[in-house]
Amino acid sequence: MPHISQKGQRMPESPIRKLVPYAEAAKQKGHHVYHLNIGQPDIKTPEVALQAVKNAEIEVLEYSHSAGFESYRKKLAKYYQKHKLDVDFSDIIITTGGSEALSFALGSVMDAEDEIIIPEPFYANYNGFAIANGVNIVSVMSSIDNGFALPPIAEFEKWITPKTKAILICNPGNPTGYLYSEEEMKQLTDLVLKHDLFLIADEVYREFAYDGFKHISVMSIPALENHAIMVDSVSKRYSMCGARIGCIVSKNKEVMNAAMKFAQARLSPPTFAQIASEAALDTPNSYFEEVITEYKERRDVFIEALQQIEGVKVTIPHGSFYCVAKFPVKNADNFAKWLLEEFDFNGETVMIAPAAGFYSSPNVGLDEARMAYVLKKEDLISSAKILKEALKVYKNIEK
Amino acid sequence: MPHISQKGQRMPESPIRKLVPYAEAAKQKGHHVYHLNIGQPDIKTPEVALQAVKNAEIEVLEYSHSAGFESYRKKLAKYYQKHKLDVDFSDIIITTGGSEALSFALGSVMDAEDEIIIPEPFYANYNGFAIANGVNIVSVMSSIDNGFALPPIAEFEKWITPKTKAILICNPGNPTGYLYSEEEMKQLTDLVLKHDLFLIADEVYREFAYDGFKHISVMSIPALENHAIMVDSVSKRYSMCGARIGCIVSKNKEVMNAAMKFAQARLSPPTFAQIASEAALDTPNSYFEEVITEYKERRDVFIEALQQIEGVKVTIPHGSFYCVAKFPVKNADNFAKWLLEEFDFNGETVMIAPAAGFYSSPNVGLDEARMAYVLKKEDLISSAKILKEALKVYKNIEK
Repeated sequence: MPHISQKGQRMPESPIRKLVPYAEAAKQKGHHVYHLNIGQPDIKTPEVALQAVKNAEIEVLEYSHSAGFESYRKKLAKYYQKHKLDVDFSDIIITTGGSEALSFALGSVMDAEDEIIIPEPFYANYNGFAIANGVNIVSVMSSIDNGFALPPIAEFEKWITPKTKAILICNPGNPTGYLYSEEEMKQLTDLVLKHDLFLIADEVYREFAYDGFKHISVMSIPALENHAIMVDSVSKRYSMCGARIGCIVSKNKEVMNAAMKFAQARLSPPTFAQIASEAALDTPNSYFEEVITEYKERRDVFIEALQQIEGVKVTIPHGSFYCVAKFPVKNADNFAKWLLEEFDFNGETVMIAPAAGFYSSPNVGLDEARMAYVLKKEDLISSAKILKEALKVYKNIEK
Repeated sequence: MPHISQKGQRMPESPIRKLVPYAEAAKQKGHHVYHLNIGQPDIKTPEVALQAVKNAEIEVLEYSHSAGFESYRKKLAKYYQKHKLDVDFSDIIITTGGSEALSFALGSVMDAEDEIIIPEPFYANYNGFAIANGVNIVSVMSSIDNGFALPPIAEFEKWITPKTKAILICNPGNPTGYLYSEEEMKQLTDLVLKHDLFLIADEVYREFAYDGFKHISVMSIPALENHAIMVDSVSKRYSMCGARIGCIVSKNKEVMNAAMKFAQARLSPPTFAQIASEAALDTPNSYFEEVITEYKERRDVFIEALQQIEGVKVTIPHGSFYCVAKFPVKNADNFAKWLLEEFDFNGETVMIAPAAGFYSSPNVGLDEARMAYVLKKEDLISSAKILKEALKVYKNIEK
């Protein structure tokens, strides 16, 4: 019997999904499970996007252009321009989710064994994309103590070698919720210019910035013209994760030519979802205002409730819809399983994502978990209450 | 300015698309261009698939399961069982097109610098997937003289080394239209069992078998249980190339576990297109009967017309909807460009795909081109007439 590749063996299991069997078992027992573990919002997809698909008159569901509909790219460029980003439609290739955009970025600028530096904790699937593309992640530690701010630049420079090709940031951050400041973006700009690196920015949570803080895109920094690669997606912006539409954006023509060859090999992004995504650009501003207000309120309610739990440490994140909290437990993985397997409070429990899977370094963040505040306020309040009650019991169990 | 990767440089331009600017120029001149260069059928997508998307009541367009809807996988397994293939729903992962299925297959069974043997000419994008995955293609030559039949097994064995992990076939063949016989499938089975290799079969044209010949799937050969990986797609079967839905199928659990980790990293296949693909399984048999009859008639009309052109060599393909023809020219690439740039017959011309891009070996097939008989009969007759007239003129030009 022939065996699988080392690559196939090394691909990580998703830390978000590995507890799924335990959650299913909890549901079998009749328990209600609040899903704080995954960034699947309950926000409705804009009607204009869904209607466009219903109204599309299709006879032959054809391939689209490998870079996506030209009409969509042109309208998307206008959207970025409205947000003061210097993006022409020729700087855009539509991809199958932000996932594919990141894969194209890695393939276009990195060869086998090349290195990319990422502040950790980071979005766990970056590990999978790195392994699939045969490249190595070098991580630089950020800390819950300052809300996961950008690590000192000297920490990055320590790890820069001739193999280093790019820095990757997720801004606003998944899993941390951290929003990089203008000063931090300036530091990153100076760093990549000095060492002639690419700065790849995963900006899929761009709209989700709170408290008057402004998201600063890599595409708004003129000095980064040849260095910036932006990864974007419609998944969270319009609550249409299932569309699987994203894009890779860069003004570096060499990068875009390479990415285009990857795009041609897989033929085209999905047609129905492009119709929905193009129409979604007509979503009224009021939708975003409502959504952002709703997320801000959810965050306020949830973080405040968490902070009132004895022994729980969490800072106020200014972006995205995640937070990483430190729990008074030795091992959050065991705690998360226990919550599903053993615990319920009035027939309800919660599912959280142990943070260790978001760290590249071993044995870090063992007492932390990522939680997404994508549920309605009363569910978040119930979730925090359940965690509070659970910790009272777990204290005597983990000893 | 930082530069792109070697991988990005080595990614091939699609041989199907590189003539597109010439075709656009021809259209600008007011010429009508018959597109024989790409396998985009003009056949209508089944109404049942399109209606399902229109009728879907979606409020939040959510991620699906990373392996695709369970309901779709179960129904798809039944479809395969009806075709006498031994496929359980747990043997299936739904992918974003056949393209992603092939990428998952390569990633799951091959590491950097591993080798895969493919009879050439082969589907040009295999080159792109191999480079993107950091693996090497070793090609074994098939010949127009016997209609691109399977090369002698000894030719494969000549190239098998410890780095060889798999054999890849496309059956029925793109670009050749060749349908492997029971005897050839038996030879391939013995070969992979003897050398403990995987046999990856791209079977996206399965339904397109003519003249009473039967397609033999790798999933119908019990001895291949642990060796067979099937790549499939809805693109051609239901003329829904733009859906971007395919699947990877294998009874080898180790392979499926690895493929599942690749699937999790990219979250899920597109939701709208899964709805269409699941519904497409209800397409009445009469649709296929009509479509297959239509393609057979197109093939008959087109091949016969080609065979009547002096100096053109082409055999009758029994599967898919492509043929590779040898032209009385030194360089089919120049001929294809000339057809678009310089030639027209009553204001019309044709676009063909030079076959050199489908060969891995250099300087092979220079006088051959791939043509897809995906247009209606009168267009195919006109196309052959144009080629005939063009060759009369080109004879004096190429000298």
